[in-house]
Amino acid sequence: MSDVRIERDLMGEKEIPQDAYYGIQTARAIENFPITGYPPHKELIRAFGYVKKAAAMANRDVGVLNKKIADAIVRASDEVIDGKLTEHFVVDSIQGGAGTSFNMNANEVIANRAIEILGGTKGDYMVVSPNTHVNMAQSTNDTFPTAIHLACLHLAKGLTSSLDDLILAMEEKEKEFDQVIKMGRTHLQDAVPIRLGQEFGAYKRVLSRDLKRIKNSVDHLYEINMGATAVGTGLNALPEYITLVAKYLGEHTGLPFKSADDLVDATQNTDAYTELSSALKILAINLSKTANDLRLMSSGPRTGLNEINLPPRQAGSSIMPGKVNPVMCEVVNQISFQVIGNDHTISLASEAGQLELNVMEPVLVFNLLQSLSILQNGMKVFREYAIDGITANIEHCREMVEQSVGIITAINPHVGYEVAARVAKEAIQTKRSVREICIEKGILSEEELNVILDANEMTAPGIAGADLLFK
Amino acid sequence: MSDVRIERDLMGEKEIPQDAYYGIQTARAIENFPITGYPPHKELIRAFGYVKKAAAMANRDVGVLNKKIADAIVRASDEVIDGKLTEHFVVDSIQGGAGTSFNMNANEVIANRAIEILGGTKGDYMVVSPNTHVNMAQSTNDTFPTAIHLACLHLAKGLTSSLDDLILAMEEKEKEFDQVIKMGRTHLQDAVPIRLGQEFGAYKRVLSRDLKRIKNSVDHLYEINMGATAVGTGLNALPEYITLVAKYLGEHTGLPFKSADDLVDATQNTDAYTELSSALKILAINLSKTANDLRLMSSGPRTGLNEINLPPRQAGSSIMPGKVNPVMCEVVNQISFQVIGNDHTISLASEAGQLELNVMEPVLVFNLLQSLSILQNGMKVFREYAIDGITANIEHCREMVEQSVGIITAINPHVGYEVAARVAKEAIQTKRSVREICIEKGILSEEELNVILDANEMTAPGIAGADLLFK
Amino acid sequence: MSDVRIERDLMGEKEIPQDAYYGIQTARAIENFPITGYPPHKELIRAFGYVKKAAAMANRDVGVLNKKIADAIVRASDEVIDGKLTEHFVVDSIQGGAGTSFNMNANEVIANRAIEILGGTKGDYMVVSPNTHVNMAQSTNDTFPTAIHLACLHLAKGLTSSLDDLILAMEEKEKEFDQVIKMGRTHLQDAVPIRLGQEFGAYKRVLSRDLKRIKNSVDHLYEINMGATAVGTGLNALPEYITLVAKYLGEHTGLPFKSADDLVDATQNTDAYTELSSALKILAINLSKTANDLRLMSSGPRTGLNEINLPPRQAGSSIMPGKVNPVMCEVVNQISFQVIGNDHTISLASEAGQLELNVMEPVLVFNLLQSLSILQNGMKVFREYAIDGITANIEHCREMVEQSVGIITAINPHVGYEVAARVAKEAIQTKRSVREICIEKGILSEEELNVILDANEMTAPGIAGADLLFK
Amino acid sequence: MSDVRIERDLMGEKEIPQDAYYGIQTARAIENFPITGYPPHKELIRAFGYVKKAAAMANRDVGVLNKKIADAIVRASDEVIDGKLTEHFVVDSIQGGAGTSFNMNANEVIANRAIEILGGTKGDYMVVSPNTHVNMAQSTNDTFPTAIHLACLHLAKGLTSSLDDLILAMEEKEKEFDQVIKMGRTHLQDAVPIRLGQEFGAYKRVLSRDLKRIKNSVDHLYEINMGATAVGTGLNALPEYITLVAKYLGEHTGLPFKSADDLVDATQNTDAYTELSSALKILAINLSKTANDLRLMSSGPRTGLNEINLPPRQAGSSIMPGKVNPVMCEVVNQISFQVIGNDHTISLASEAGQLELNVMEPVLVFNLLQSLSILQNGMKVFREYAIDGITANIEHCREMVEQSVGIITAINPHVGYEVAARVAKEAIQTKRSVREICIEKGILSEEELNVILDANEMTAPGIAGADLLFK
Repeated sequence: MSDVRIERDLMGEKEIPQDAYYGIQTARAIENFPITGYPPHKELIRAFGYVKKAAAMANRDVGVLNKKIADAIVRASDEVIDGKLTEHFVVDSIQGGAGTSFNMNANEVIANRAIEILGGTKGDYMVVSPNTHVNMAQSTNDTFPTAIHLACLHLAKGLTSSLDDLILAMEEKEKEFDQVIKMGRTHLQDAVPIRLGQEFGAYKRVLSRDLKRIKNSVDHLYEINMGATAVGTGLNALPEYITLVAKYLGEHTGLPFKSADDLVDATQNTDAYTELSSALKILAINLSKTANDLRLMSSGPRTGLNEINLPPRQAGSSIMPGKVNPVMCEVVNQISFQVIGNDHTISLASEAGQLELNVMEPVLVFNLLQSLSILQNGMKVFREYAIDGITANIEHCREMVEQSVGIITAINPHVGYEVAARVAKEAIQTKRSVREICIEKGILSEEELNVILDANEMTAPGIAGADLLFK
Repeated sequence: MSDVRIERDLMGEKEIPQDAYYGIQTARAIENFPITGYPPHKELIRAFGYVKKAAAMANRDVGVLNKKIADAIVRASDEVIDGKLTEHFVVDSIQGGAGTSFNMNANEVIANRAIEILGGTKGDYMVVSPNTHVNMAQSTNDTFPTAIHLACLHLAKGLTSSLDDLILAMEEKEKEFDQVIKMGRTHLQDAVPIRLGQEFGAYKRVLSRDLKRIKNSVDHLYEINMGATAVGTGLNALPEYITLVAKYLGEHTGLPFKSADDLVDATQNTDAYTELSSALKILAINLSKTANDLRLMSSGPRTGLNEINLPPRQAGSSIMPGKVNPVMCEVVNQISFQVIGNDHTISLASEAGQLELNVMEPVLVFNLLQSLSILQNGMKVFREYAIDGITANIEHCREMVEQSVGIITAINPHVGYEVAARVAKEAIQTKRSVREICIEKGILSEEELNVILDANEMTAPGIAGADLLFK
Repeated sequence: MSDVRIERDLMGEKEIPQDAYYGIQTARAIENFPITGYPPHKELIRAFGYVKKAAAMANRDVGVLNKKIADAIVRASDEVIDGKLTEHFVVDSIQGGAGTSFNMNANEVIANRAIEILGGTKGDYMVVSPNTHVNMAQSTNDTFPTAIHLACLHLAKGLTSSLDDLILAMEEKEKEFDQVIKMGRTHLQDAVPIRLGQEFGAYKRVLSRDLKRIKNSVDHLYEINMGATAVGTGLNALPEYITLVAKYLGEHTGLPFKSADDLVDATQNTDAYTELSSALKILAINLSKTANDLRLMSSGPRTGLNEINLPPRQAGSSIMPGKVNPVMCEVVNQISFQVIGNDHTISLASEAGQLELNVMEPVLVFNLLQSLSILQNGMKVFREYAIDGITANIEHCREMVEQSVGIITAINPHVGYEVAARVAKEAIQTKRSVREICIEKGILSEEELNVILDANEMTAPGIAGADLLFK
Repeated sequence: MSDVRIERDLMGEKEIPQDAYYGIQTARAIENFPITGYPPHKELIRAFGYVKKAAAMANRDVGVLNKKIADAIVRASDEVIDGKLTEHFVVDSIQGGAGTSFNMNANEVIANRAIEILGGTKGDYMVVSPNTHVNMAQSTNDTFPTAIHLACLHLAKGLTSSLDDLILAMEEKEKEFDQVIKMGRTHLQDAVPIRLGQEFGAYKRVLSRDLKRIKNSVDHLYEINMGATAVGTGLNALPEYITLVAKYLGEHTGLPFKSADDLVDATQNTDAYTELSSALKILAINLSKTANDLRLMSSGPRTGLNEINLPPRQAGSSIMPGKVNPVMCEVVNQISFQVIGNDHTISLASEAGQLELNVMEPVLVFNLLQSLSILQNGMKVFREYAIDGITANIEHCREMVEQSVGIITAINPHVGYEVAARVAKEAIQTKRSVREICIEKGILSEEELNVILDANEMTAPGIAGADLLFK
């Protein structure tokens, strides 16, 4: 038996490997688009399984698709969902044709598998046709966006869970470091004291807003445009089918899908993706700032700030023994840069939509799914291998506060601006501490200073040691 | 009398023009930052007026600021709000120091005006001090972000109003063109018919989502960090003051300001701005796509699509008589590019925050306020001078549908795929119309074709002329 | 025999699959960085082979590396170069540690293979040590940048060849379409005639400048920083070694490598990459504009411009028979968007360098190598499957010129602005041609019009039909 | 006498202020484009003066423009060049129409001024017509790009001079700090020693490459497209005129302008701008990295790295006495972010060109000229107010090196890896210095350590104290 079969389409014929579940249209796409070498994202493949399954069941219910064929398509689609046919999704992540090749790859794989289920031979499309049956009442222009929505939702679920864990980890550190007083810095210059826990509290809060932003933006993905067919007018799609396909998709995935109010709008506009990508970009910005802060605070050990320690994860150098680098922070920075760059590509693709369709969706979805994946992956290891294991150099932090001249700000209300400024000046010139000079000159007693320079007093709204003023 | 006065600070002394309301710190900023030549945005100046007024009243109420001085500061601040002192805000829009020069420019102008109100001479800071009185219990790190929030909110109000009007204009066109059938296009290739009104409906809907997005993101700006002082710990800011300043700011502006739950977080994080900028960017993307569509549809008049006419606004060429260009669309494209680029700068600035402060806020706010302004301005003229006056070339649109081969898709269910494909092929080869061939070959009657190819039938979900199938 | 071996480093021990050529440091990286799932680019792996080979030979020559060990390292490196060990390069493309994990993956694979060559067992690092021998006198901070340079140079060679072919294809079309007169358009509005060949000539010229830009920027990659060791000071690297390693690298690759004049500069700065990426971005912009033009010119067939035909490459629709889309142009647009987004990530990574090193190089190189690859791949298929097969609808192009009112500009000098404007106006109102009206009104004879409206006359500098003016 | 005059065009009539030099087309643009409020860049206005002057002289020479009118245009243009009419250039920087409004504003101002010169009254276009005379043989599509080229070249001259000065300042510091040994850092972690002068040398070198890049890219701006008229075919432009206009422009500006080889290419492609903008972006990236380094090195004074001191330029805080911030570095960072964002807008605008013209040039040139200006301005003050006055904390730098464990790398070759690692470990655990432990344990003598740990030995290629190994 030959190891190839011949398939035909409007443009001619082509040899297809006999064991391939894909067919001639996929083969043309392989030839046309040898671009990145990256196959479709696994979640996008699974999403096509769900879409084709729901469409087959809806078409069966409205009476236009033979039950036996429908059932075979459903079984084949289930195998796609279960990842059993993943290797047969072979078209490139970046491709022309607005996703037609993704859709046809799915149609052909499911058709050939359904043919087998029905006892036929791959390529015998009289049994189950990729176009007539698997793609029935569908267009790339509605199935592809719907599959994107589903893939995004699945990935977003993992992402938000990963982000949620990170927020909790930050909260743990907020509590753990609540009493660790350290020098606050603005412009990288010594400012006034702050508690390390307050810094982690700020990380927690900004990430919590990121979580909210992402969840909000994901909500818009429940509106799908199945039934839009070519341009959103729904030509040749029966209204009952449109209702049913959304219902089935919801049941199978557990997600509250509904048909978009305006299918023309839903077919041509890609703002749901740019909105999600923007939310991811903002998360990336905030993660990068956090990673930068941690790298600064852990700098040293001898000639840096040395306020905190990140868990060592791997040897930092082949030439300097004992060097350990903040590698988990650095990977977070880089993931962030990737996500920000991806958002740029996504924006370009979104803006390039024309009239009834945005044909740039393949590159858009490639970047969007990548952003979702790498953020999820990155936050998981960031938490496990960096945040959870952070320890504070409590004593060093305290010493730096005491050494600093910035604490003069807290003493200000007690001794007047004039005296405070004089003490500050002497401290800077003599390289001695503010506390020492105050005691030596009899400006404030050690007891008074202990009250005023108390971590909680100096790091909460109000005048530190206010009681002393009124005793 | 000399036309300069001498002012002093820690770094020495400097001549200040006698009629200048600003003082030495502003003068240093003028020297340090001769960058863009653009003064602060008018709304940012007004916002500082509101902030300084509210702070003075709060400080007066908690008993730390002399009533006479407070009242003078309030009067001077009111003049800033009313735009009477705008010309004295002279520091550059891009500056180092995290906005200290904006804040000091405001402090100095208000102090000198308050001095005059109290009968003193500009520069006599014993009467009213820019630091001790006008900036009392404040830091650049809380007043500047608060002023940014206020300026954004004022500009956003104008922006959303402008967007709202544009949405209504699109809705008008949706209704007006509801019965104008035209060729739908995907990949810029003839697809299936659509109604021009449906296209404008899609523009309306995506812009409506933009409006919602912007309103959502603006909501986060009501949280302000007054009382945070240097790093958010509130050192030297009394809790009562913090409450009062938010209250007064709310009363004076009519906006529901409230103190942020966590002032450390609110002082160092800039995600409220990136979120707003992202919403603006998405609007920009959608506006640009819309402008592109309109430019395509109005292309020609002889050798383009020529489906619609944009109102002529100015001569298009000095060399070709009668040429009229889609200038209002082109300006919208360019505003969009500017806003997208601005979002990039804003993202860079946001990511560059370090530890307790983001010192890059001046460039961030410069871009954010510009985006808000130019989008508002652009949408207003886009609506007035382009959208409102669009007319459709109804007959030409209809002819192109009839000429097209794409309508074969509607005929498909009535004659079967085989026959349809044969008709399509003949139409393409002979350059004749599908309708003509169908009638000539007796495939469908003129009456039947009139039903099937009815605008509403072909452009709504379902099978066009479904009744014919079951008669 | 166990299927794992135990390896140890400063942080403890780890099980390594017995058949793995990589070792414990790679295993830690696998654990730390499960981010993209993408292994290093094949050309980067090969480049590490070249670097390690040259270093081993240089170390051998200066007498610090045992000849037997050196020879084994050379043989193992050759296998890396030949792609025989590619599957053992398993660390993620996005990783922390500034590429240490790439370098250690290379060191470990080569060490273990060299051990085998010398008759030992994988993991027996007393025979050949990844650090002591394979990495001798090296640091990640010099080997990784050097490998990047080499990988970029190899990919750039393919890229420029692909671009060169595309330029030639454009030139072919410039010649082929030299006499195809068509309507020139500005603002998408009818302007004055142009020849289709002139348009392809413009594509050729801008791409030729792109070629030059890329070649220029690639030149800077010949400067390498081998011998810089940790921070560029060259601590522990002998000057003879530095000279030799550049010499060997040049000999083995045929590329004119030389040691950078200032190794500190060469170690911390990444402008050679941003420069190359910028050149790629500009190419992407120009390709995208070209693809957009071709999509416009081939729009239709019935309701678009329909000036040219792109070769059909795959079925365009599953619902509309006969529809063919400009998929090769669309993939070029998307590659361009990807490259522009990648440039953004690269810029972010470049700006994030700090002090003696840029630790963001992994994400930078991931994007840069991807840009190089996808542009090369994309231009190849763009040329083969789109440009080479473009045909012109000569007659339709000519008709549109004749129909247009824009040709009045050529008639202008012959009849005066007043008469020309009157003809133009009548043409627009009556939808008749300028030629027809001129003849009917006796303004110009058919013979005269044939001269004036001659393709070459109207589309070259000067006054069309100038001779008629002086006869 | 009325304070307005009435002007007319194809669209109707409009009141123009009697003292305005601009006319009806400018007035329409004011109405259409109230976008940014920013008038054209001063250098762009001057450039239009040069263009119109050269065109008038060329038209006069080829005999199509009356000498008296030509001379009046030349005189009026000279006034534009001298800045005397700047206030009459009132159209917005962002505008539709591909710059037609810039061109017409120039045509109208020069025409009206020329009319006055000839004794007429503003608005009497029979004397000198904006279109017929001032714009003779020109189109916006050739004059605007030519003016952009000229404006860029003028600004680039100032920019490269400013950059040159900055490079020299870095070189001064390279020499001044040649013997200041300090700790080198990678990953913000202590690495091996480096000299502060080496760091400034690296800044110098990367900026020198930036200078070269900018100069290279500027070279392409000497090719102009005057004579292209509408689409580059040169319709109605005489070849002699094309030659003469380039010649005159060159003579008047001292710049080696020449006519582009292919005017079609030169009219539609904008790669000369993206190339220049890319070069500026790379400079911005490098400046930002440098500013970041300086901010890190000057961090403290008590709780930061405190290696260098930046000259104080203004009070850093209103709440913390004595605080001085690195404001000149911060403004450089922000200028860089602005330039990077501008490059993004420029890329978007460049990609949006269609067919024979890029109508997005106004926003492109707005951003490009701004980038050129703010970089020039920023580098000037950065040098004067920051770089020139940097001082080093020599003693502190030296102490940090001695305290560091990283110097063990230099000791390595002398005592073997095993012993070195043991010393390193003890140093880290006991917080003592490597030097101290080596002496105490008798591993190396103080004399030997003085040789090995010599600044120049440790910071140049080779083994520090190599002689000791062979004595």
